Amino acid sequence: MKIKIIITGGTFDKEYNELTGQLFFQNTHLPEMLKLGRCMTDVNIDTVMMMDSLEMTDHHRQLISTYCNKAKEKNIVITHGTDTMPETARYLSKHISNKTVVLTGAMIPYKFGSSDGLFNLGSALAFVQTLPAGVYVAMNGKYFHADKVKKNKQKGIFESR
Amino acid sequence: MKIKIIITGGTFDKEYNELTGQLFFQNTHLPEMLKLGRCMTDVNIDTVMMMDSLEMTDHHRQLISTYCNKAKEKNIVITHGTDTMPETARYLSKHISNKTVVLTGAMIPYKFGSSDGLFNLGSALAFVQTLPAGVYVAMNGKYFHADKVKKNKQKGIFESR
Amino acid sequence: MKIKIIITGGTFDKEYNELTGQLFFQNTHLPEMLKLGRCMTDVNIDTVMMMDSLEMTDHHRQLISTYCNKAKEKNIVITHGTDTMPETARYLSKHISNKTVVLTGAMIPYKFGSSDGLFNLGSALAFVQTLPAGVYVAMNGKYFHADKVKKNKQKGIFESR
Amino acid sequence: MKIKIIITGGTFDKEYNELTGQLFFQNTHLPEMLKLGRCMTDVNIDTVMMMDSLEMTDHHRQLISTYCNKAKEKNIVITHGTDTMPETARYLSKHISNKTVVLTGAMIPYKFGSSDGLFNLGSALAFVQTLPAGVYVAMNGKYFHADKVKKNKQKGIFESR
Repeated sequence: MKIKIIITGGTFDKEYNELTGQLFFQNTHLPEMLKLGRCMTDVNIDTVMMMDSLEMTDHHRQLISTYCNKAKEKNIVITHGTDTMPETARYLSKHISNKTVVLTGAMIPYKFGSSDGLFNLGSALAFVQTLPAGVYVAMNGKYFHADKVKKNKQKGIFESR
Repeated sequence: MKIKIIITGGTFDKEYNELTGQLFFQNTHLPEMLKLGRCMTDVNIDTVMMMDSLEMTDHHRQLISTYCNKAKEKNIVITHGTDTMPETARYLSKHISNKTVVLTGAMIPYKFGSSDGLFNLGSALAFVQTLPAGVYVAMNGKYFHADKVKKNKQKGIFESR
Repeated sequence: MKIKIIITGGTFDKEYNELTGQLFFQNTHLPEMLKLGRCMTDVNIDTVMMMDSLEMTDHHRQLISTYCNKAKEKNIVITHGTDTMPETARYLSKHISNKTVVLTGAMIPYKFGSSDGLFNLGSALAFVQTLPAGVYVAMNGKYFHADKVKKNKQKGIFESR
Repeated sequence: MKIKIIITGGTFDKEYNELTGQLFFQNTHLPEMLKLGRCMTDVNIDTVMMMDSLEMTDHHRQLISTYCNKAKEKNIVITHGTDTMPETARYLSKHISNKTVVLTGAMIPYKFGSSDGLFNLGSALAFVQTLPAGVYVAMNGKYFHADKVKKNKQKGIFESR
């Protein structure tokens, strides 16, 4: 099974700029993470955007949707900021059919050492291989259907709604 | 869904003894890893043994099998040394039915910073929630049926056989 | 020899708030760092403030100076943001005598895994035990006299001026 | 000031072989550690041997001594296994004069994430710049004269004798 991974940014890929003291985006860490996980699944990575999900509009979501639909792969993992992950999942669920799409992300940047990113990536890649067609969020070791998930911003976790 | 996690040791849980310079087993790091992954699945951890899988005999495999069969949970993740993981998977596949059992492990100890363990744990927990009843190995971002997996010891990866 | 460590904040002690995505100060990581370094020197830690050095005024520098002068110890390490470390060093050099005072800091927060903080702390503790009375900056494996140091903000390193 | 760094191996530079599960020596991590510490001192690194200090004989110590004596630099840091670091320090103190030589090492391999190595390296580089001619051990944030140091193997720390 060939899996497409679409990168959109989010906390996952944030880095610390030591000259300015600010967080910023540079390159995605996905290839490094897949190597660390000794991942041998057949993946094909596209960086579509590198942005904070709070700044995403439906214009961006349309672009992601287009990438998913035109991909040859039937199984797609999308890395995404957590703040609007449920919104993007719902948007995609209305515009994509016959594909298994799994959105995932991280609460802590991968580069900061104590990130949940590697765990989430492992689970997203597993879910995308086994779930039926549909759009899902994979966070906290669970999966949620696109229309039944919300982020609890006080606790920093994903829950059913 | 409630998931049972059975700990048997393996590289996953090895530590470095700074007084002797030897690797050894102390306590499992599973709870720490689940916390790092912000895992919210309902898990129940049992440490059944803490050993190198090269030293495992069918006596040990029988014990693991008994734990699986008497567990109330239908979905079980087993952490295990990689060297004889396929052998244990095959043993269990002959002695357990009507349960989804996923074995996983690591090539590098979790405590050594560059471990594949967190990625593997994320994928094992996802596979155990979605695969039909059967015994599987989850390594390298893939899953393998118990009777169709081998470890390639030259490359340090798992392959179909 | 008893060494006083005065904490003032700086990048050293910044953390990532996963709920807001902002960097912030919580508690100092100095005790954890000293433990990691298996440090057996006799140290006495005072957290005087927890702030970004860009926000420091002479009011804050006066407070640090007072802490140094009233300390029983003759050998003092100060952790400090890098942006105005030379300014504070010069202020202190005019207000403290007969003590060896070494300022140090980090370009990357200790919690982010790839920090220079542990290296800098090791060097600062060594310099404070061996340099004659005076005020110094210890960064980049070197020491600089208070009146002969500047931060090169383009390169993120300290240089003689 | 130009500093010579002589590598002899020790826990500092041990790595984990994921195919065999054994610890082994490959290349030194000193350049990587100096980069992490943003070290700007002028250093010149020679790898003289890569061995466990328990296996060192006076033949090896003679070789290290020769390297120190023929070096153009007056200030030398030696990375060394902790088990016989005091013995090597005493041997060198009888065969080297007019140079400041500082031996250091680590209780935990640098690659294992929780190492004291970066702290020790920072302190050794600072001590070598400031101590008068002589041979010293720099461990646990302290320095010891070659003839007044022992390793407490029960506690894993260095003490005066």
